[in-house]
Amino acid sequence: MDKFKVTFLPDNKIVEVAKDTTILSAALSSGVCIKSDCGGDGVCGRCKVIVKKGRVLSQPSGLISAEDRKHNVHLACITTIHSDLEIEIPLESRLELTLGTEGIYSVSENVESGKKILSEISFKYCPLSTKLYLELPLPSLNDTASDLDRIFRGIRKTQNLPFVQTGLSNIRQLGELLRDSDWKVTVTLGKINDTLEIILVEPGDTSNRNFGICFDIGTTTISCQLVSLSSKKVLGTKAAYNKQAGFGSDVITRIIYSRQEEGMEKLHSAVTETMNQMIKELTVEHRVDLNDITCVVCAGNTTMIHLLLRVDPTYIKREPYVSTANFLPVLRAHEAGIIINPRGLLFCVPGVSSYVGGDTTSGVLSSGLYKEEGLSLLIDIGTNGEICLGSKDFLAACAASAGPAFEGSGVACGMRASTGAIQKVKIDAKSFSVTCSTIGDARPCGICGSGYIDLIASMLETGVIDRSGRIKLENHMRVRDSEAGKEFVLIFKEDSATSKDIVINEADIENLKRAKAAIYSAVSVLIKRMNFEFNDVKKIFIAGGFGTSLDVDNAIKIGLLPDVKREKIVFIGNSALSGARQMLLSIEASKKTDEIARKITYFELSADPGYMDEYMSALFFPHTDLNRFSSAK
Amino acid sequence: MDKFKVTFLPDNKIVEVAKDTTILSAALSSGVCIKSDCGGDGVCGRCKVIVKKGRVLSQPSGLISAEDRKHNVHLACITTIHSDLEIEIPLESRLELTLGTEGIYSVSENVESGKKILSEISFKYCPLSTKLYLELPLPSLNDTASDLDRIFRGIRKTQNLPFVQTGLSNIRQLGELLRDSDWKVTVTLGKINDTLEIILVEPGDTSNRNFGICFDIGTTTISCQLVSLSSKKVLGTKAAYNKQAGFGSDVITRIIYSRQEEGMEKLHSAVTETMNQMIKELTVEHRVDLNDITCVVCAGNTTMIHLLLRVDPTYIKREPYVSTANFLPVLRAHEAGIIINPRGLLFCVPGVSSYVGGDTTSGVLSSGLYKEEGLSLLIDIGTNGEICLGSKDFLAACAASAGPAFEGSGVACGMRASTGAIQKVKIDAKSFSVTCSTIGDARPCGICGSGYIDLIASMLETGVIDRSGRIKLENHMRVRDSEAGKEFVLIFKEDSATSKDIVINEADIENLKRAKAAIYSAVSVLIKRMNFEFNDVKKIFIAGGFGTSLDVDNAIKIGLLPDVKREKIVFIGNSALSGARQMLLSIEASKKTDEIARKITYFELSADPGYMDEYMSALFFPHTDLNRFSSAK
Repeated sequence: MDKFKVTFLPDNKIVEVAKDTTILSAALSSGVCIKSDCGGDGVCGRCKVIVKKGRVLSQPSGLISAEDRKHNVHLACITTIHSDLEIEIPLESRLELTLGTEGIYSVSENVESGKKILSEISFKYCPLSTKLYLELPLPSLNDTASDLDRIFRGIRKTQNLPFVQTGLSNIRQLGELLRDSDWKVTVTLGKINDTLEIILVEPGDTSNRNFGICFDIGTTTISCQLVSLSSKKVLGTKAAYNKQAGFGSDVITRIIYSRQEEGMEKLHSAVTETMNQMIKELTVEHRVDLNDITCVVCAGNTTMIHLLLRVDPTYIKREPYVSTANFLPVLRAHEAGIIINPRGLLFCVPGVSSYVGGDTTSGVLSSGLYKEEGLSLLIDIGTNGEICLGSKDFLAACAASAGPAFEGSGVACGMRASTGAIQKVKIDAKSFSVTCSTIGDARPCGICGSGYIDLIASMLETGVIDRSGRIKLENHMRVRDSEAGKEFVLIFKEDSATSKDIVINEADIENLKRAKAAIYSAVSVLIKRMNFEFNDVKKIFIAGGFGTSLDVDNAIKIGLLPDVKREKIVFIGNSALSGARQMLLSIEASKKTDEIARKITYFELSADPGYMDEYMSALFFPHTDLNRFSSAK
Repeated sequence: MDKFKVTFLPDNKIVEVAKDTTILSAALSSGVCIKSDCGGDGVCGRCKVIVKKGRVLSQPSGLISAEDRKHNVHLACITTIHSDLEIEIPLESRLELTLGTEGIYSVSENVESGKKILSEISFKYCPLSTKLYLELPLPSLNDTASDLDRIFRGIRKTQNLPFVQTGLSNIRQLGELLRDSDWKVTVTLGKINDTLEIILVEPGDTSNRNFGICFDIGTTTISCQLVSLSSKKVLGTKAAYNKQAGFGSDVITRIIYSRQEEGMEKLHSAVTETMNQMIKELTVEHRVDLNDITCVVCAGNTTMIHLLLRVDPTYIKREPYVSTANFLPVLRAHEAGIIINPRGLLFCVPGVSSYVGGDTTSGVLSSGLYKEEGLSLLIDIGTNGEICLGSKDFLAACAASAGPAFEGSGVACGMRASTGAIQKVKIDAKSFSVTCSTIGDARPCGICGSGYIDLIASMLETGVIDRSGRIKLENHMRVRDSEAGKEFVLIFKEDSATSKDIVINEADIENLKRAKAAIYSAVSVLIKRMNFEFNDVKKIFIAGGFGTSLDVDNAIKIGLLPDVKREKIVFIGNSALSGARQMLLSIEASKKTDEIARKITYFELSADPGYMDEYMSALFFPHTDLNRFSSAK
């Protein structure tokens, strides 16, 4: 079989592949990540690449303009390789994976800002893995307890669980280790059900070197924090796009992809590579030894957790939408391919159903919704949006497939809430000039979720768009035709960091409108079906990976959030990550997630006869029924 | 480096090794097993081989006679290879590993005969691993429990432990398996502490195909039984020499060997190869699928268990004689290299100390010693002999290093109690003609433990030997000089199955005398130190791998057992194996072993000032002090 060498620019990564391989799959196998929302079906048009040298064959596509063709632009997923190639991946097609350390959207900031609200929800400090320093009495003819019993005896002095056990690999090293360390050792203990598991035995006193990592594994974005389990401090936070995004933008396309040959392996590698890269960078930055990370907590939607664990997600997608497992046993992190201490534990936050996962449970935990006196609502805005309604008396949840637009994916100039992202936008009503602020005050690279919300609200207010999302402004330098309908230029290339215009087009607006409609209609149906009205809701927690600067008024103006009194709305940032962090630091919190997950009743929107109508009426800004948004009128 | 080809006859096994390799290590690496009691130190003289072709270099040794030299006989352990070779391994140097299926010493026979005594000690039937057939309700939009929860729900209907869990490998196959089997599956459950572990999930109803294996792993002999966990029936029994015997005849030489390069790996492979061969033969004979064996229980002395699990046994041998672990967690059998179902469990019977292991605990369980009203004694006669004194009120145990003579190893014509072994001997007082009976009434191949006891008692009675064990009979065709002192011929080669004379020599008698002295003096010291006398003992349980034909009178005559009323003595066969079998069939029994092991006080003989004197006085038949053996006078 003919083999060809493909060079990807600007990274200069080279890979050798067989004739007829698509450029997309060559890129993935070389480690280069290209955006692909449709999972390689040739329909999203996100994977545009420029063929600089060599011969390719492309299927015809309406997504490639005449201009594109002139510049040798092709869709990577439907273009096959027929000679050695040199391929350039333009900035807008690249899946951003570099993790800046400065100016990065910091979840801990939200945590800080949210602290006032969440301060009462504190669990007893007792991390999922603890270190205990032991100075053991030396054995003698009068005290011939075995090495293992001697350790158990030491542990029993302070710990009080019915069973203590450990694995063979620890036992095997015990004899020499205890004697070499003069019977002074540190044991790392994990609590699994009511058994105390000795995870590790180390020579000397290492009890102040015990770290944990918590993850929120989103369909589009993965966030994580490195936590000192001894000092309770958050050492650092990272967020990155999930490398799986190269195989489809939502959980459904991922599940379909997992059925392909080696699909599961590729999806699993993609997510663990993303996670391991984040862990590695955090440990390097904070000078933490990977071996001192003894515990990982992962919150994620059900599909993400299945793929992380290489559990077949097929049945999530087939009626009656049953997952293989919502409650996972405590595992070793290495079983999932997460690189920390080889014996370190992995806790997955328990989920509720196929479409309401551990991220929701985690959010309910960290928001405190489960113990609210009054009726409250948690809206977690993500690619797979989740809504939970309830109080201390009941909990009901549903899911809304919003797509990744609010995470800056699947929209022309979208980006994650990181340095250079436009997070606030104001359009002048007369001149239509645009005022922006970016994260880190950097030169703008793109637009993040909160920026899009401001932008659409502003475009509505100034009449740049009408309530259906069509661009109505005419004969203005900022408005022009494009492949994706009309587009409005926010930043001209002279001022952008990418040397390209930063724009929003009608297709983007349509995407954002569908996303907000999916969220709003899910909230609306859930409240109705539970026999409440919007006004009954006393508190609304908004969670998600926006910047810190979400403008609640604008979110209401575009119809993403219901029109309620502003003081009812509390922005809590990445609540899934906060919950996972609370679990890391408290077994009590971890037990509570079990309770919460069992308590939540899942409500299947697709089975509700009124949902489609509700969704259709929400496909206007803010809504077909303006009476629902009287303050926005 | 020069490589030479060595051919071992009569097996015709060929191995290629480097120049200067010893014949012993070449034999081991070819899979041919040669006896070696000293572990290759050139001092036991058991590894004689005949060099038929080729050039070797031997260290000089007094153990090789002029006659031997004439016939090219060399000690395999101190002879190195210097050309291609052809080596014959004479019958007496071969470690017998072939497991006959008929006439084999059957532990179950003893169990039968012992049943009258043991009938009261029955534990509630509840095997360590059980199979449960489930017909699960199909999922629907109204019942969307996850696959795993659905199984848990099914199990919860009949099982009542606080926690149910399973491993990732089971979860991974669940989705497809449940649907392919139409939601009718069999789960194999193991109880670990108070957690119910799903070991396996299989399609359909396999609940009547659940088997367990119990092992008694002795230093010299390994015995095992295949048990149907659903019908409680013993399907078959096997016994074989432990292949580790090639690396030394007792636990101390094995521990020393384990410190050599790859010593641990070799010892571990030797024991698991022996075990796996036994399992394989049992499963073939009884048409049991290896995958249907879901549980293994191993009783063994502490060193054997360490070596089985590849846990360094070094510290067992160093003062203060502390083992690494007496209580082992429940493991997977594959972690120890035992080949059954890959997820099958391994329970090791808990031990007491470095020299009183799980085999003793198991014997105390099956004998019922731990609940005797009156003072009782358990004497387990093995290479590492163990003695336990006690009742329902207390338990005290010690160990006696007896050596393998009573197991037919380390003596010229010794053999295991299997087909062809002389098990009963009578010498005519006048003619000194010998009447023997063999196991299976086969032509005699050698002498087993009970045969040696009869033989020595008979030789004493007839004056063939004196009380010190010297052969006194002169000018008789059955008596002649040998390399190992005088020897007495039991069976002339014309009548033997090996075409060689079957003899006992003065070195053998010395070995047997030391073995019985070690056992007797240990019993004597233990009773004295606990402030009792022999007469206080109401019942003596004798355990060990003799034939079924142990003659108690003769055992007393030679001074192996104390001179007590015969009706006090109960022969219970392989009590370690019986105990392990009871554990297989009952969690209650398994919990009881924990209790017993914790209750037994270990008594270190080597630390007792009177032990050496006691041992020296026992180096006569029956004893220096004849008053102790008035019935034998």
